[in-house]
Amino acid sequence: MSDNRDAPASLPADSAARGELALVRTLRTLLAPEAERGPVPFGDDMAAVSPEFPDLLWTTDMLMDGVDFEAGRQTWHDIGRKALAVNLSDCAAMAAIPVATLAAVSLQNALRQADAEALLTGIRDCGREFACPLLGGDTNSWDQPTVISVTVLARRDGHYPFIRRDGARPDDTLWVSGPIGGSLLGRHLRFTPRVALALQINRQLHPHAMIDISDGLALDLNRVVEASHCGAVLDGPKLEAAIHPDAHTRAAQTGRPALEYALHDGEDFELLIALPPNADVQRCAALGLRPIGVCTVDPGLFCVRDGSREPIAPLGWEHFR
Amino acid sequence: MSDNRDAPASLPADSAARGELALVRTLRTLLAPEAERGPVPFGDDMAAVSPEFPDLLWTTDMLMDGVDFEAGRQTWHDIGRKALAVNLSDCAAMAAIPVATLAAVSLQNALRQADAEALLTGIRDCGREFACPLLGGDTNSWDQPTVISVTVLARRDGHYPFIRRDGARPDDTLWVSGPIGGSLLGRHLRFTPRVALALQINRQLHPHAMIDISDGLALDLNRVVEASHCGAVLDGPKLEAAIHPDAHTRAAQTGRPALEYALHDGEDFELLIALPPNADVQRCAALGLRPIGVCTVDPGLFCVRDGSREPIAPLGWEHFR
Repeated sequence: MSDNRDAPASLPADSAARGELALVRTLRTLLAPEAERGPVPFGDDMAAVSPEFPDLLWTTDMLMDGVDFEAGRQTWHDIGRKALAVNLSDCAAMAAIPVATLAAVSLQNALRQADAEALLTGIRDCGREFACPLLGGDTNSWDQPTVISVTVLARRDGHYPFIRRDGARPDDTLWVSGPIGGSLLGRHLRFTPRVALALQINRQLHPHAMIDISDGLALDLNRVVEASHCGAVLDGPKLEAAIHPDAHTRAAQTGRPALEYALHDGEDFELLIALPPNADVQRCAALGLRPIGVCTVDPGLFCVRDGSREPIAPLGWEHFR
Repeated sequence: MSDNRDAPASLPADSAARGELALVRTLRTLLAPEAERGPVPFGDDMAAVSPEFPDLLWTTDMLMDGVDFEAGRQTWHDIGRKALAVNLSDCAAMAAIPVATLAAVSLQNALRQADAEALLTGIRDCGREFACPLLGGDTNSWDQPTVISVTVLARRDGHYPFIRRDGARPDDTLWVSGPIGGSLLGRHLRFTPRVALALQINRQLHPHAMIDISDGLALDLNRVVEASHCGAVLDGPKLEAAIHPDAHTRAAQTGRPALEYALHDGEDFELLIALPPNADVQRCAALGLRPIGVCTVDPGLFCVRDGSREPIAPLGWEHFR
């Protein structure tokens, strides 16, 4: 679910993204009353289903050719895989177990039959990989660019709770599930949703809050601290140690700091986790988690390095440049 | 779910609809093995969720501006309402109780904020009307025509089974839930999905098979008899008595027989029901059902009038003219 993809407030009032922000706010006003009936509030990575089914969540994502993918630059199998994988990453963010998938597509009439099959096979194969089978859907064709909408239903892992984004508390420690930044060099096309890891984190570490990094660490961390009514201070050297080599490659190409790519690149699809202060550090290390900072009483995002504290702009890659 | 919207085999091999048929076949081949795990087979009006949740079904439908609706000729509230209502009609077809809704939209950038709100309000209001609240979704914008994808989860009605389309047997009687034909004069924009009636039919009449008439009586009846491995003979005079006044209006406008509109018009969204031969006729009448024919051992669709038997082309309105 991406109602939460708020565009930053600094955009000009007449831009499309500005309109999307207004619409997201509208959606929140329209739907928040309907959604106050489940284990998660409106606007988290997945939505509640019903008080009758408190152990189920679901999510939907729509991908459009030319916006979310480029048909000419990716294989249709990869596009299908990704259309499901972004939803599975939402499941991971909630520590939910994916159950099943539906897909609706509007295929551009010019699409070859083999490409259409590759798209559906990509969804199917990803569903098999994550025990979340594609069970049906709606196939349409039209003259416009191809649109893919995937919905995933997921269930609770036994007695472990779903992990929301609004549960972080001051003094919680912040962790990422893997190195971040520079994903647009190619990792974003074939990433692995952290479904299995999320369940281990939930079982072993009792996290307070979790989100998947889909729009950049800074923007997604800002979502966590805003929903949790706290702030965060990142540790510069620790953050440096969590930068992906791809971010350094990008930095070498552009001359910009690698840290910028780590903070603001989208589509890492790693998890950002807030753990209680007494979390077992050895277990964290065994799961491959990397510490990056702490939550604070004071709001806002900051990075501390060499004793100086700098604010971090809560922006994702598409709005940063 | 509309994987079942097979285009008729008589289309030219290079048309878009021909491609859609091929794709539907592909989808069936790809997905049938995944779907063999629930209370309904692949290709019915709704899909199974999981053997873990045998009392749940779900369905998704994608509507595109210029194909499934005309933004200039309908209000956005009506468009939103219909985007959910077509899914609720699928719930009715299975005698399932709608539980909740997700919606994903890609809004054309030119769309005014008020129109976007009207669209979402239309979905929300329809959800409230049918106790199937809109709980979340995915909002996007792009330069292309608006696309709306709605997913509905539904549950079984106590111990009553879901009604599939493949359970009709020879000597079953065939009924429609209301007068049919001519819906394109306007009824198709604001139809009432027969959710409540479907539950009454299921509780009182133990139907063998059911489907909603979305693509025309002939085409949808053909789906029932093909899935059920039987045929059907419609009773001309009874069918005449089930023709909607709108079909007569259309006939007067065009000079074509009203029966043609009753057989081949899409978007009636009434139910087509196969009942056991001993069904309680008085209960049927009390529920407003109208008899139109019987199921037969021999395959194919026929209409009998004045002792002569004519084949019925299994085509929907869009392919008939």
